[in-house]
Order: sequence, then C-alpha cells, then structure tokens
Amino acid sequence: MSFNFEKNSNHSSNGNQNKDEGTVHLNNENLKLLKEDVLYHLALGTATHDLKTMFGDVKYVCMGGTTNRMKNFAEFITKELQFNFPVGTQLLDLCEKGNRFAMYKVGPVLSVSHGMGMPSLSILLHEMAKLMHYAKCIDPVFIRIGTSGGIGVPPGTVVVTSNPVNGFLKNEHEFIILGERVIRPAILDYNLSQSLIACSDKHDNFEVIAGKTMATDDFYEGQGRTDGAVCWHNEEQKFKFLKRAYNIGVRNIEMESTVFGALTHSTGIRAADVCVTIIDRLEGDQVTTTKEDKNQFELRPQTIVGRYIKKDIERLGLLKQK
Amino acid sequence: MSFNFEKNSNHSSNGNQNKDEGTVHLNNENLKLLKEDVLYHLALGTATHDLKTMFGDVKYVCMGGTTNRMKNFAEFITKELQFNFPVGTQLLDLCEKGNRFAMYKVGPVLSVSHGMGMPSLSILLHEMAKLMHYAKCIDPVFIRIGTSGGIGVPPGTVVVTSNPVNGFLKNEHEFIILGERVIRPAILDYNLSQSLIACSDKHDNFEVIAGKTMATDDFYEGQGRTDGAVCWHNEEQKFKFLKRAYNIGVRNIEMESTVFGALTHSTGIRAADVCVTIIDRLEGDQVTTTKEDKNQFELRPQTIVGRYIKKDIERLGLLKQK
Repeated sequence: MSFNFEKNSNHSSNGNQNKDEGTVHLNNENLKLLKEDVLYHLALGTATHDLKTMFGDVKYVCMGGTTNRMKNFAEFITKELQFNFPVGTQLLDLCEKGNRFAMYKVGPVLSVSHGMGMPSLSILLHEMAKLMHYAKCIDPVFIRIGTSGGIGVPPGTVVVTSNPVNGFLKNEHEFIILGERVIRPAILDYNLSQSLIACSDKHDNFEVIAGKTMATDDFYEGQGRTDGAVCWHNEEQKFKFLKRAYNIGVRNIEMESTVFGALTHSTGIRAADVCVTIIDRLEGDQVTTTKEDKNQFELRPQTIVGRYIKKDIERLGLLKQK
Repeated sequence: MSFNFEKNSNHSSNGNQNKDEGTVHLNNENLKLLKEDVLYHLALGTATHDLKTMFGDVKYVCMGGTTNRMKNFAEFITKELQFNFPVGTQLLDLCEKGNRFAMYKVGPVLSVSHGMGMPSLSILLHEMAKLMHYAKCIDPVFIRIGTSGGIGVPPGTVVVTSNPVNGFLKNEHEFIILGERVIRPAILDYNLSQSLIACSDKHDNFEVIAGKTMATDDFYEGQGRTDGAVCWHNEEQKFKFLKRAYNIGVRNIEMESTVFGALTHSTGIRAADVCVTIIDRLEGDQVTTTKEDKNQFELRPQTIVGRYIKKDIERLGLLKQK
C-alpha cells in the first residue's frame, strides 16, 4: 500500500477555506509595501521562487535543533507515510544556499532545523510564517521536535508542552523592540497538544505526558546548572529553584518554547512542542546519557509526531490510495 | 618558506606563565567537585579525551556563525600561516559527533562555529572556556568573525566592536538565573581590538573602524525591522530608533556581542568581535546583497584576523622556520 498526495488540497481543519487564499494572515501592514520579500536565512524569496507551487501543499512544519535530526525525521516520515519519490531522486536541502537552516520536504511535511536557542528559532519562525503566507498554505501546524532536560521524570519521557514558561516561571516571552521591553503571552495549541498525547500507545516503552516547559536563554546558569565555566550559586540554591519549577508543573527545560508560543500565537499558527527528556535534573547536571540511549530517545518524539501526521492526513482525506 | 609550531609553547603575552598551569581560571567552585566533565555540545570530555595533548597549544579561538564560514576560515588560515599538514590528511571536524558546533584546528588556531544568537554562543563559550582551562592553554584569545547589519556605514565595512550594547543600548548583558534578572557588564579587550584595527592596510578596498555593536535576540522586530511576520511599529519609529543608536556610536547590529563580552569578561579571557556589514539599515531592511558581494565581504574580517594572528605568532616567536 502506498500513497500519493493531492497537490494543493483545499481540505482544512475547518473545511471552508478558499484554496486560493491561504489561511496564514500576517500581522504586519508594512509587508504590503514590499515589491519582493527575500526570506534571507531560508535562501528563498517571492521574486526568485514560485513559493505557491513549491510549498502550497504544506500542512505540517516539523522543526528541531540539528540538521541531522531533521534529515532523519524527513527519512522517517518518508517511510512512515510510504511516500514514493521517483526512482533516481533523493531528498534535497531546500535551504542549503542559506548556510543557516536545513529544510526537507516530504509531500505535505516540511522538516526544518532551527539551531539552538530562541533567537535562532525566532528567525526561522518569522521566515516560515511568511513562507506559509506567500505559499497560501491552508491551516498549517508547526510542531517542534526537541530534546530537553527533565525535572522529576525519568530520562526518555516525552513531554508535550501544556504551557511554556520563561526563566521567571511566567507564561510569557520578553521581546526587546525599539529599546523597550515588550511582553507577549506564550501560547501553544491545546487541541493539537491533546491530539499528540493521544498518539501514545500502551505498548510503547515510554510515557507521553503533558507538562509545563521552561525555556531559557542559556544551558548552564540559565537552567540553574552548577557546571558551567562561571557560576556563583550552589547546589542547594539550584535544587530550591528546580523544585519551585516542579511544583508549578514544569516537567522539562529547553531553550525554545516561549518564543515558539509567542510568535506562533501572534501569527495565528497552531503549534505544539514535543520534547524527550535526556536527563533528570533532580539527579544531576551533566548529560551522560549514552549515544545509543540518546539516539533511541530522539526517535520517541518523531514516533509520536509521525503517528499524528499519519492519522491527520487520513482524517483530512489528503491521501489517494494507489 | 613554511613553519612548524612548537607544541605547548610556554610563550604568553605577559611572558611569565608556567606552562603546566594554564591561565584560564574559571569562576566556579563547584567544578572542583566534578570527577569528570562532559563538554556535551562539543562531544569532548575530561575522561574521554586527553584535552591537554589535543588542545594545549591553542592560542587563537576564532568563532563565527556558520559551519561553512569556519571551515573556510580554517582553510584560509592554513594557507596564510603556510601550515603544512602531513600528505594524505585533511581537516577534521573535531565536534562532529556533537551535531551542534563544528571545530577545526590549525596549529594554535581553532576555528569554531557558534550558530545564531546569544543562547547558542553562550553554550559554546561555557564549553570553550572549560576546554581552555582543562587543556591548560596559555592566555588564549577569543575572536568572533561575523556578519552584521550596519548603521550609517557602507556595506562591506569591517566594524571592530569598541563596546557591545544590548537592545536598550546599554553596555551590559541580562541573564536570568534561578528566576532572577542578573545584569553583568559586556566588556571586550581594548588592546586586542586596537591591534586588530591596526591590521588594516591602506591598499585594502574597505574600511576597518571601531564602533559600538548592538546585540539583539531577534533579527526582525528586535533590530527594528518592519519586514518580519509580525510588526506593530512603522518606518518612522524604526528610523528614530536606528538614529538614536547611531548617535551614541552604534555602527553595526548583530545577535551575539553582549553575551560574548559578558562571558569572556567573567572568565578573564581577552576577546574581540570583528564583523563585516552586509547592509546599511538606514537604507533598508531587506538583505539583497548578491551572493558574490556577500562572499567577498565575508573574507574581510577573515583577512584582518588572519593578519593579526600571523603578526602575533611572529611576535611571540611561536614559529620555527624550516
């Protein structure tokens, strides 16, 4: 059994969109004045590429830190969807010329790397939201597939973020714009998160849980670690903070979720953050997980997201069975 | 004429260091309690690698955003120093297993990628400072080779940062540690910056200037751009802010300099930030520089830093002429 995808399907989750319109409407009046828009870090642009033909059928934008992981995910989803590329072709990195991000396309799925940290991800989010807009995509979802430190859960647990919180444990993201601090809510899509959690299976050898995710701008001091090059706090102060985070429901820590929630919410794009934990920070700071365990762990968010995409494609009737 | 380097030379800029000691002393008492230290994102560690033998001779750590640029720089410096690798060998990415950063070693020079933005760079800085400490390096310098947006200078100008300023135009960096905002000064090395500026040549077809560098956590709204996926300010407000920055001496904008100044200052490592501008933000937001111009521009900081390293190696007598 294998599938073809209908190009530029007009199916959407609310079913009444016009396929020539797209559904990503950007909150920026200034863009209307641009003659062309160069998506600089993607090495794509409105004057140089036919974005609607290239990307108009995209429904699922999956993002993760490293090029390797996102290439693996593209290969995984190719198998999972039994997607047949023509003989003699291979996956191409669509952003190779930009030297910043890597992007692979498997039918309605994009698999894109975002580097580490919120500034890097924020560049990608601005340009991906504009790409979805120019390509007139219908109701695309953005799903982050990441690794994270856990708090009070066994390494290997998959945490689907309920609410992202910042380093102050607040459900918001701080921007600095034109010299002023601007605070915006960091909100992911509740229904999408629930659908992802529902993709766990009782035969899986890991748990998939909902939890708050703390996003920091630093892996060492910012996450309370005591093993950075500089550190003026001690173990006791660290544990006090980690327990405070645990008590408000934080189950993992990474470096992306608040800007992810803030920017997708501002652009009206449904988004979810699915991370595996590779360490329990209540047990220590150093990541000593073996390469083999880490590779196994990294497959878990991919498995959950793969199941979700497969189910959703079936639900939307995007597939034509050959 | 070609050179060999003396391994583990005990020359240093102040000339009286003990080579068995190293000079990078970390501000973290907790590290003394660690049995081993895994430099996770570098895929190196104190228990798995003989860091002193591998890196003890390092004097110049050059950092830049992309893997490509830093591989190019490693190849450039190999030629510049007329460094002879044994026939049948090639440059190896020493951090390949980490999948995060790329690192190349050419004698006393490391060429390392840091990704985009301060969180990504801060991870590298913590781990590189620890690496310098464990390898007992003598007075290493960290030099960032970057691209940036210019303010009021022609594209292609090389700006050597005098003072890094944040999005509030303050000469400091904000950390969030254990739920509290912690503000630290962002200070680069004045003498090193002056030495780099002195490496310009009257025959060069570009200017090398000193200027303040604004570091932001975002390429779009954070730098005042009006062409992001979301934007609630207009052109007039943008120009007002850019002119305010220009008036206090800001000549370029990138996404790294304040954390670079803050963390190198905290670890006592001399550092400089050398960026070429690829756009004048007083003329527009979109980066439409041609690939050819951009490639030419990117060589300029490399040229300046290459000349500095060559001169400094000669000054220190690190070279044995064959």
